[in-house]
Amino acid sequence: MAEEVMLLDFWPSPFGMRARIALREKGVSFDTREENILILTNKSPFLLEMNPVHKKIPVLIHNGRPVCESLVIVQYIDETWGRECPLLPSDPHERARARFWADYVDKIFPALRTVLLSPAGEAQEAAKEYIEGLKVLEGELGDKTYFGGERFGYVDVSLIPMYNLFYSLEKLASCSVAEECPKLLGWAERCMQRESVAVSLVDRHELYEFILVLKKHRQLQ
Amino acid sequence: MAEEVMLLDFWPSPFGMRARIALREKGVSFDTREENILILTNKSPFLLEMNPVHKKIPVLIHNGRPVCESLVIVQYIDETWGRECPLLPSDPHERARARFWADYVDKIFPALRTVLLSPAGEAQEAAKEYIEGLKVLEGELGDKTYFGGERFGYVDVSLIPMYNLFYSLEKLASCSVAEECPKLLGWAERCMQRESVAVSLVDRHELYEFILVLKKHRQLQ
Repeated sequence: MAEEVMLLDFWPSPFGMRARIALREKGVSFDTREENILILTNKSPFLLEMNPVHKKIPVLIHNGRPVCESLVIVQYIDETWGRECPLLPSDPHERARARFWADYVDKIFPALRTVLLSPAGEAQEAAKEYIEGLKVLEGELGDKTYFGGERFGYVDVSLIPMYNLFYSLEKLASCSVAEECPKLLGWAERCMQRESVAVSLVDRHELYEFILVLKKHRQLQ
Repeated sequence: MAEEVMLLDFWPSPFGMRARIALREKGVSFDTREENILILTNKSPFLLEMNPVHKKIPVLIHNGRPVCESLVIVQYIDETWGRECPLLPSDPHERARARFWADYVDKIFPALRTVLLSPAGEAQEAAKEYIEGLKVLEGELGDKTYFGGERFGYVDVSLIPMYNLFYSLEKLASCSVAEECPKLLGWAERCMQRESVAVSLVDRHELYEFILVLKKHRQLQ
């Protein structure tokens, strides 16, 4: 029986991008179903059925069974396909380290979200906070090629979708990630050389236009 | 060479309890170093060295190498010791499901924290929100013995320390978890039959006294 792999996704979502990248790293063919979650009433009955708890994308549906939450999805993909090209390292301590840093990427995300979606007055402070978080990540990266060393892996998959939003961050908070975190930018450019990443990220200008629409929409609510 | 396993812990912490329970489930001997993190200036240089990013307990130090973040620690313990009695199931989809629910326990924790530490006026609303979250967990539990079925596992380890705080929750918000979530209470009592859990949780009255001191301390800051 052929495998059925479907991703409930929404094109601007950095969390959806994680699932896309992981699937492509593993060479898994998948269908995408675009869920426009901009407006609550737009949530499809199918999304609500597949993720009744959080009602959010991404949801990976593998042979009819849903997996929710982007980092859980990436680990599921890693454990299910392409064991010869693992995203998580095999050593338990290195695995713990990778999980710690992927969680860290999520811990600092609310500050980025504030920059992108809150009124202009709150953007500066949140941008400063987010960039402090990026500097911690830059410290962990050091002079390595990827976060796990020579091999593109779990932390890279978790963080690179955020790079897609740096242009919007810079526009909205008048700052420069490249100036603050030059090594991280070098890492991002290396990641972008990978087809899995290049195909999964979206045009940063279109993403910025979308964020402006989203901000306006939220202010009208 | 004998293994060195040390847990930087603080007795009232539900997150520390997760690590204690997991180590005991696996039969790992460990030393504990109590870190009083009530006051910022009390954080020891050793804690800051072992967890420079979050500066929090629990930290598991295994042969000199630190592992931080409670759920990361529990997974590390599971992957390092006692593979014959796993906390996470072997099937990738079941593993993803377990990770999803353990994350959910953390997602609803801020409401419990608000009940415990915020001024009385905010407690009722937060308690209502937290109990709604518990009801979702009760729905997932259903009529199973443990969250994973017949075997005590990852979600149980993640959630049972919160049960230790239900007495404080009920005192501070005048509510009854037993009335709202009877199946969850049955599950908690089953968990308490396990030595790993019974030894790792603390006296609920002492915990409540500690929370009252903590609240007072925070109001003075």
